Parts: sequence; C-alpha cells; structure tokens
Amino acid sequence: MTDSPLKRPLREQYAGLRSGTLTATHLAEASLAAHQARGEHDHAYLTWNGEAALAFAQATDAVIRQGGDAGALMGIPVSIKDIYAVPGLPTYAGSSQRLPQTWEQPGPMVSALLAQLPSVMGKTHTVEFAFGGLGTNAHWGAPRNPWDLKDHRTPGGSSAGAGVSLVGGTASLALGTDTAGSVRIPAAMTGVAGLKTTAGRWPTNQIVPLSSTLDTPGLLAHRVDDLAFAFDALDGALTRRAARVPAPPVLADLTFGVPSAFFWDDCSPGVAEAVEAAIRRLEAAGARVVTLDLPHTDEAYTLFQQGGLAAAELAALLKTELPEMIEALDPNVAARVKAADDMPAWEYVRRRAVIDKLTAAAATRLADVDAMLTPTVAITPPTLESLLPEGAYARANMQALRNTVIANFMGLCGLTLPAGKDGAGMPVGLQVLAGPWQDARLLAIGQAIEEQLGTGPDLLGEPPAP
Amino acid sequence: MTDSPLKRPLREQYAGLRSGTLTATHLAEASLAAHQARGEHDHAYLTWNGEAALAFAQATDAVIRQGGDAGALMGIPVSIKDIYAVPGLPTYAGSSQRLPQTWEQPGPMVSALLAQLPSVMGKTHTVEFAFGGLGTNAHWGAPRNPWDLKDHRTPGGSSAGAGVSLVGGTASLALGTDTAGSVRIPAAMTGVAGLKTTAGRWPTNQIVPLSSTLDTPGLLAHRVDDLAFAFDALDGALTRRAARVPAPPVLADLTFGVPSAFFWDDCSPGVAEAVEAAIRRLEAAGARVVTLDLPHTDEAYTLFQQGGLAAAELAALLKTELPEMIEALDPNVAARVKAADDMPAWEYVRRRAVIDKLTAAAATRLADVDAMLTPTVAITPPTLESLLPEGAYARANMQALRNTVIANFMGLCGLTLPAGKDGAGMPVGLQVLAGPWQDARLLAIGQAIEEQLGTGPDLLGEPPAP
Repeated sequence: MTDSPLKRPLREQYAGLRSGTLTATHLAEASLAAHQARGEHDHAYLTWNGEAALAFAQATDAVIRQGGDAGALMGIPVSIKDIYAVPGLPTYAGSSQRLPQTWEQPGPMVSALLAQLPSVMGKTHTVEFAFGGLGTNAHWGAPRNPWDLKDHRTPGGSSAGAGVSLVGGTASLALGTDTAGSVRIPAAMTGVAGLKTTAGRWPTNQIVPLSSTLDTPGLLAHRVDDLAFAFDALDGALTRRAARVPAPPVLADLTFGVPSAFFWDDCSPGVAEAVEAAIRRLEAAGARVVTLDLPHTDEAYTLFQQGGLAAAELAALLKTELPEMIEALDPNVAARVKAADDMPAWEYVRRRAVIDKLTAAAATRLADVDAMLTPTVAITPPTLESLLPEGAYARANMQALRNTVIANFMGLCGLTLPAGKDGAGMPVGLQVLAGPWQDARLLAIGQAIEEQLGTGPDLLGEPPAP
Repeated sequence: MTDSPLKRPLREQYAGLRSGTLTATHLAEASLAAHQARGEHDHAYLTWNGEAALAFAQATDAVIRQGGDAGALMGIPVSIKDIYAVPGLPTYAGSSQRLPQTWEQPGPMVSALLAQLPSVMGKTHTVEFAFGGLGTNAHWGAPRNPWDLKDHRTPGGSSAGAGVSLVGGTASLALGTDTAGSVRIPAAMTGVAGLKTTAGRWPTNQIVPLSSTLDTPGLLAHRVDDLAFAFDALDGALTRRAARVPAPPVLADLTFGVPSAFFWDDCSPGVAEAVEAAIRRLEAAGARVVTLDLPHTDEAYTLFQQGGLAAAELAALLKTELPEMIEALDPNVAARVKAADDMPAWEYVRRRAVIDKLTAAAATRLADVDAMLTPTVAITPPTLESLLPEGAYARANMQALRNTVIANFMGLCGLTLPAGKDGAGMPVGLQVLAGPWQDARLLAIGQAIEEQLGTGPDLLGEPPAP
C-alpha cells in the first residue's frame, strides 16, 4: 500500500479533514509532489491547475478552521475530464482548438461538485470529443497506462487521463463520462473503480456532447466505497429521485447473473480467468450465481458496429456549432464520424426505436437477478504501436468497447472494480450491471463484492515508479 | 338547439344515465338514426360499428339497472380515429390496406376508454397515416364539412371524421390525435372543441405512429366543458401526475397573451374578425389582454415547412414495418414522406435539438400569462376542388397547419373552441395555448372562456340537413 494520503479511502480523508489530522493543503501538496515525480511520464492532464488548486486548498483550510463545511468533497483533490465546462479552465474536448467561451460555463454536474470546494487539480485528457475507447489522441498524445513502464500501453478511454490521475496520485476522485464505456474501460485498464450512471439520472448540460441520447456523467475512484461516498455527495443536488446508497447487502442474499457467451469471447490471456476466479470467490462466500443472457445482445453490438447513434449526433454538433473543427479531426475520430455521412434520417429514427426495445427487454430480464457480472473489457490494454497498422485501431477499439456498450444500448447502469491482473500483468476489471435507476443499490452491491475481493489498492499495490 | 341527446352536455348525459331519464340504448339509437339520416352524406366513418354498438349499449343498460358503474363514460357514444388500435375493428390508419393484426391490440388510451364501457360507434376517417391537415384521403375520400351543403369543403384533418361524427350526431365524444394540429384543425373547421394534450402526458402505444416524438392523443367534443369531463374520466388511468380539472377561474383574474403577428397573417375574410371579437368580449368581461409573441416562431414554422421530424419518423415506420405500403401511398402523403429521402441523420438530430430549444424558450415566455389566444386556423375550410391545381394542396395544407404546429414544436398543450363564423359562413376556432403539463388548468381556463362566449351548439346552431 501507498503512503499517499490521496489513495486513502474518501471517508478517511473526509474524517481527517474535519478532525484536523489532515488538511486540504496537505492533500494538494501531495498531488503536486506526485505530479512533479511522474506527471510528465503519466501525461494525464491536458490542463494542469496545480498551483491554483494549492492556493485554493489553503483558503479552504482557513474555512475549515473556522468551522465551515461546504460538503462532503470539500478539500478533496479531483480531476475533471476535459469535456466538462469548468470556470476558469479552457475546454478543448480533446480537440486541437480551445472551444468557445460558452464551453467554460459550468453545468449542473460541475456546479454540484464545485459548490463543495474540492481542489480541482486540472482537466484530464480525453479522446477527441470522447469518441473512442482506447484513450488515443492525435493532437495531444495518449496518457500512459501506469502499469507498464516498458511499453506505452493505452490507458483506456475516452476518459483517458481520469484513471491515470488516480493511479498517479494526483487526484482522489475523477469525473469522466460514459457513452459506450468511456468511464468503465479506463477504470478497468488502470485498475480503479468506475461508475456509469443510468442515462438521464444526472444532467449532461455543459458537457460537450458526443451522443445527446446516451452520454452519461460518471465517476472514477480507487474503490467502490469511494464511488458510493462521492455518489451520496452529488446525487442529491443532481436528481429529483435522489437516493442514498443503502448499507451493503450480505453476499449470501444476492443472486448474480453470469452470461454464457458474448462477453467471454476472444478474451486476452488471463482476463476471463481473473474474472471467473473473482466470481468463484463470491460464490464461495455464499452468493448465488446463475446463467443469464441479456436479450438481443448481438443485435445491440451490430448496431454499435454500424455507428450507433453517436456518429450522427456528433456530426450534428460539429456541423451546426463547430464546422471549422471537422477538417482538423483526429483521423480515428474522423473515420467514425464519417460513418454518419450516408446515414439517412429514418435510419437514425429506426435505431432509436431499436434501443428503446432493447432497453425494455433488458430491464425485464435483469429483474430476475440482483446484478449481472462480466469482464469489463475482454482485451489487455494494447500498446500504441500495435494500433498503427491499417485497420488495427478500428478493430481494437471495437474489442475494447464490446462488453461495455451493451449497458449503454440497454439503458443500464454499471460499475467496474479491479479483479486482479491478466497474463500481461495489466489490471482486469469485473463489470457489475444493474437495471435502470438502480445506481444506488448497484453501488451497495459493488461494496459487498469489494469487501469480499479486496479493494484495488489492496489487490494491485503501487504502480512501478518511472 | 338540437334535440339530439348526443349533443347535450356530457355531464347531463352522465347524470341522465344514472338517474334513469336516459339510457345507453337511447343514445345509441339516436346515433344510428343520425347515421341513417346523414351518414352517407357526412362520410365520417371508415368502419361503422352501429349495430354492434347498439347491442353493447343494451347490455350496458342492464348493468346500469343492476347498479353497476364502470366509469364516467359508461354508455356514452364515442367515435375513434382509425389510427388507434381497437379490439375487433380493423385498423387502416387511412391507408389502402388493413394493417397487421398487431394493430388491433388496444393501447393504454383505448383501454382506459373501453374499460368504462362507452358505446363505440365506429372508426372515423383519417388522412393516411395522419400526415396532413386538410382531411383528404385518396383511398377513401374526404368526409364532408357539414356546414356547407353546396360545396364539398374539407372537414380539417388529419382527424378528418372526428369533428364530423360530433356535428353529424353520431357520437358525443371523439378520439383524435394531434401531431401538428390534427385535433385542433378539424375541431375548428367543424365548429366543435378540441384538446391537444402535452406530448408525453398520455401514452401513444398502439396508435399508429406518424411522429414518435410529437404525436399526442387528443379529444374532440361539443364543448370545452365536455372535454374537461372526459379529461377527468381518462387522465387518472393514463398519467402518474394525474390532475383533476380545477374549478373554472374568474375571467377578471386572468391575463391572456395575444400575438402581434404571424398567427394573424393571411387570414380568410372574417376569421381574424371573429377571433378579435371574441377576445374583446373576454376583455370586456374583465380579462387582462397583453401582447405576447412566442420566441422563434418563424424558426419553428420554417422547420415545419422543411418536413419537421414527422417525414423521417414516418419513413422509418414504413421502411421497417410496412415496406409494401410505400408504393401505394396517397400522392399528397407520398410527397411529404419523400421530403425525408435526402435528409441525413445529423439533420434530424439537429432538428430535435432545435425543438428542445424552442420548447424551453416557449415555456419560459408562457409563464408570463395564463394562456395565449390566437385564431386556430387562419383559413376557411377550402373546397376539395380548390386543392386540385398543381401545388394547391401543399400550399393550403401549410396554411391550415401554420397556427397549430407552433404548439407542437414548442411542447405546449392547447385547445380550440368555436368563436363564431367566417365570411364564408364556416366555423372559426379560437385557439388557447398553455405551457407544458398545464392541460388541466388549460381546460379550466377554456371553460371560463366558453361560459363567456357561449358553447358551440349555442353559437352555431344546427348544421343544415342534407
């Protein structure tokens, strides 16, 4: 285990800040030190805000000393994906140009966060307009996956810097977004926990839209317990149907559905094995495990391979609001946007109807279990080099997104937590899926699983120092 | 005034059925007699169900005599637009062919109605797939507007037979749908009252979809008071946020917004005059009248002229579920569906975003007044002959829909009630618009207006006998 105070449970940081054994300044200083030590190597941030965050933390401490308490995330170092508008910081959304000033006006998600006075350490790298699962970016380069010093492996994406900011010790909580897996994939690939909320639960205003239909704000942190803590801190301000995360259930009271196929196909060495071992441990602890396949899984994946909704929805944003950006797109992003060029409007309408049908069928099926368990990502994080040959990026991108996008196309919420390491020594994620609006209960189930399997920091230890 | 019991207020029919001064059988017999007298002339029904409805009414009376009460609409003669699935009756949706059997399984709206044991007199004519505002139909012919014996004038559409069934005396309540004005236009053109509900308030399942985004179920009846009665009978079963229509407010407590332009442009002789006179009477009775223009009205209308959302959404239905229907479409409908052929998916996404923007802006503006008042339709019902020249149909169709579609594109609810007659002696409608989800309050305001202006039967008398 690490000595970094940023890697201690959020509940401990919360308590320490209030008892005086910890200060916001100390947390910010530890973040700056970590950034000094490995920031250049990790390349997590497009905009580093360390000095300003330290000054802010000092002011926060003064308030705390006066007995002020602005909320559960006060003084906590956070990183924010460069797709959220944040006052005072530029928004590129991973593109080559700073977006117009209107994209620096905060929406509900950032406002709910900032009102609690966290220390905003910076804005993390994203795939351009969040349209990709591998974390690459032709304009700014990809963050390094911290678990491999030798090869530059992808950190997962599109929230490419989010997981890296946690593992690298510069943030205790990271804001990401998930349209097809963009929270869960980087979380799984960097060995942290990630929450994809139910679409519609948390508003997406002032998050540069990839898919106006399927975008969801999400959280990354070291533990499911940290996610539950942050969820409780934010959900009330964001949701009319706010629900506190209930006490973790007893595993012996839970039934998990495990798919017989699809999610297990073409796994890299050690991925399926790590997830299966985790499921066996849960079963040994008393959980009931049954076979459960989501209806129309293949249809959902085919729809995704055809471009889903995002290609047309991103094209609409670019053509109407940012036409000058189209020529300058990352080639891998441009290729995916181009898929929308020949799509007629009625085909888009048809796809929306298919997604509605898939969503209804999945909700019914998932009512039979407490949650569904799968590998989060089937493949080990590929090296950047392996993505260079013609067609290699497109193929690997589909493989990376395959297991996560099903939840987006079926209206589910989901989380991932570390289950161990694969044959390449890279982190493996266990995906936990639940029906729409079950976010709070899903987190409680995730906590029960985590209590049995151990947290990411316990399982994975420290990443190698560069 | 008429002696037809079907034209008496629904509250009176309700009370009479329960006190024994009226029977369901008597109502059904009166409907059959009216159909005998003028059914062929009016041509309101694609499927007439009179004999079966009479037998059903007799059984209903037996239940009433036993003290049974299935709901407020028990024993009331109703007509249903041929776009709703109704058990035991074919659905053509105005097309040339009976649709597959799945379109005869009732959805929530019809189920909520039928559970109250009304007498279903038949299914009324509609424009093919509800895609048109004038009530014409190349396959089945247009119902006659009952207020002109000499010329065959349009009854308005797409709920083309709905208003005619009321004026012709075969139904006391008519179910229609409104995507761009298809309840309000036929109501205004035939001199009855019509309610367009807020999109999303009442479910549209098992209503053959024209626009999956903007379709709304609606009601037509002789009076706003009848609409309020029927709304109260149905809203509870259809809406989680069910609200009873409150007591009508006092006119002196109300502020009405009246637009300065757009809605008044290019009115047929006598239309603007009748509506202005009605507004003056409301003002004389104490209502406050202020100038109020909806933001982006021109943008909304331009979007509509370009095909809005419906062209692509209907194309998606036809191409995926009813491909064999495409070749056989009514030429006027085919021309409008064709507008979607060249529309790319991103343009559809852009239009959805524009409508979201229009909706938000309109809701804010309408919060300044209790309701907005406009002419429902700017033009007198055109003769079928006038629609024959090249381009004449398209032009008249846009004119007919212009004042109503604004409410659909801005997320409003609305109603129409008779305001008098125009220069051609045809009925003129006063449109009353309110913000989203204000349906119950809108009906109460409409009742207050109706109390001042007089009901349709009071104002217009009986239509000429053929």
